[in-house]
Amino acid sequence: MSSSETKPNVIVIGAGGVGVIAALSLFYCNKSEVSLVVRSDYDHVTNEGYKILSCDYGEYENWKPHHLYKDVHHAIEEDPNRFYEYVIVTTKNIPDGPVGSRVPTIIKPIMENQLVQHPDKKTNILLIQNGIEIESDVLATFDKSKYNYNMLSGIQIIGSTKIGIGIINQQGHEHLSVGSFNASDIDAIKAAEKFVGLYLNEGLNSIEFDERVRYSRWKKLLYNAAINTTTALVGLDVPRTLEFAKNKKSTEMEIYKPAMQEIVNIAAAEGIILDEQFIEFFTNITRNIMFKPSMCVDVQKHQLMELEVILGNPIKLAEKYNVETPILKMLYNLLILVQCKLKEEKGLIKFDETTARLADS
Amino acid sequence: MSSSETKPNVIVIGAGGVGVIAALSLFYCNKSEVSLVVRSDYDHVTNEGYKILSCDYGEYENWKPHHLYKDVHHAIEEDPNRFYEYVIVTTKNIPDGPVGSRVPTIIKPIMENQLVQHPDKKTNILLIQNGIEIESDVLATFDKSKYNYNMLSGIQIIGSTKIGIGIINQQGHEHLSVGSFNASDIDAIKAAEKFVGLYLNEGLNSIEFDERVRYSRWKKLLYNAAINTTTALVGLDVPRTLEFAKNKKSTEMEIYKPAMQEIVNIAAAEGIILDEQFIEFFTNITRNIMFKPSMCVDVQKHQLMELEVILGNPIKLAEKYNVETPILKMLYNLLILVQCKLKEEKGLIKFDETTARLADS
Repeated sequence: MSSSETKPNVIVIGAGGVGVIAALSLFYCNKSEVSLVVRSDYDHVTNEGYKILSCDYGEYENWKPHHLYKDVHHAIEEDPNRFYEYVIVTTKNIPDGPVGSRVPTIIKPIMENQLVQHPDKKTNILLIQNGIEIESDVLATFDKSKYNYNMLSGIQIIGSTKIGIGIINQQGHEHLSVGSFNASDIDAIKAAEKFVGLYLNEGLNSIEFDERVRYSRWKKLLYNAAINTTTALVGLDVPRTLEFAKNKKSTEMEIYKPAMQEIVNIAAAEGIILDEQFIEFFTNITRNIMFKPSMCVDVQKHQLMELEVILGNPIKLAEKYNVETPILKMLYNLLILVQCKLKEEKGLIKFDETTARLADS
Repeated sequence: MSSSETKPNVIVIGAGGVGVIAALSLFYCNKSEVSLVVRSDYDHVTNEGYKILSCDYGEYENWKPHHLYKDVHHAIEEDPNRFYEYVIVTTKNIPDGPVGSRVPTIIKPIMENQLVQHPDKKTNILLIQNGIEIESDVLATFDKSKYNYNMLSGIQIIGSTKIGIGIINQQGHEHLSVGSFNASDIDAIKAAEKFVGLYLNEGLNSIEFDERVRYSRWKKLLYNAAINTTTALVGLDVPRTLEFAKNKKSTEMEIYKPAMQEIVNIAAAEGIILDEQFIEFFTNITRNIMFKPSMCVDVQKHQLMELEVILGNPIKLAEKYNVETPILKMLYNLLILVQCKLKEEKGLIKFDETTARLADS
């Protein structure tokens, strides 16, 4: 490609540990023009750029992608005619959070603008997020008979964290799987394959086209539904949850493994066969590293957890298929209370102590 | 009784909200000579006495019982020949805590001294504590063929808290049930009945002889095993746990009530029939008052919880009788991790982050 005019535009929405490294990978590859939506750190990053410590890319000072925006409205305002071929969402997925932070709400202005400005072009929506059934909200909001888009799904394995304002620390090698949510949608498959070319920096990061991305989501869910959730409830890193157990066994034998077996059973009802050896694999994957999963970090930072996409949605499917999930349900019923505690702290719900009742919103 | 010489001696070990009011009730009744073992506040209370705000007895400044001691050794040293007819333990019962804080360890010096000094007199050990099977530890430690004692058991319903150094706030009317642990032990029954006479202040406090004190313990356990435990895990008062639930129902229907049903089932296997209407009763008893149960307060104060006597012991019995307890076990397996977190904070256990393993003690 000869000039930036001919490069496709990509917009990454969400500038945490996942989003900034995604923007960096695209930028480094130099086959697309990269816009990044940075909410809270916008002023700082506009002035000084990012400081990035990356195990894949080395150290950066003052790094910026091609464009920085406060929000999607800002992006549209600045260049209403620009067509984003890929709209990548890397925010936390919290459907029970504030309306403005839900995925369909976030991308709606871009979808509307592209519908008006570029009715013949097909937008590729790519969610690089945790959980199950996260694509359904988008598909339900944007009717395919009106909006012209492909639904792509991405699973990123990376140990990357925003550790300060404009500072990203990536400690784990990036591995991104990208595929079409609908495994038989030829157009979406092509778009996912094209994306791999825009993203891959050989010898540095890893990205692969994933022909069964729903399977990969369920596989990653094994860890998140069982282990991420438990650490959030008890406020401990993974090795401590294993070692502090009764006879050093109860967490593994009575929580993690049966919870993962329940996920295997729900997935099976969905037609997705997860090899049961993954239960052993995920039980051990963080046994020896001092790792605190995301939901545990969220609680400690007083941030909402991705509870609904990690536990709520699989449990809804289990109920639909009459799959028994006693362990997952108990974790869910307890974590709902913790999530509401966080919501109350944030003023999202109100509890009236004089009546001992939740105040109607 | 004409002089204090003829009054029986009573020693109350443990000067929290429960112990200080017990000492006050005995002192007020004026039929016994009351010694109180005050661990942490000893210096302050020796100098200034207690400040007590009591809904039963009114306000006190500078209140002291007849004798104050730092620990039981101190009591024995000061008057080795004094015979304590009643040895009342009101500490928290934490068998997995430091050895020195376990009930048999605490009372052993008195039991040994009374065996030597008063071999013909019978000591009445009275545990006013939470939980199930707490008497077994005492019975196992002090062989009845050697030590001369009755095993009494007490259940106190009271909203009393130590809110500062030497300051007790009693907000709920005291109701104490006292009986013989062995319901057919005539001697112990008589001792319990006598104790009622030493303790009752008519029109002020309530105390009753309880002919089935083990039943009363199991009954109180319904609340503690289901509700106290859950609040400790999620860090919320009871009304919030009910209101924050999915559809305002999941906590009640999927945690509290099934957990209490499991206690009903274990008790039944022990031959103790709890009316199932208590499940509804205890679910509602603190629905409308902003109450945080003891284990929840313990976690927030970074103190060990009475986890083993409230959940560990009933679950052991359930295993013995093959009673299914999925909800209680899940609460227990999660709370074990929280208890170990508290133990690590207190230096009772050590975790080696370089090996990601619990260090051997």
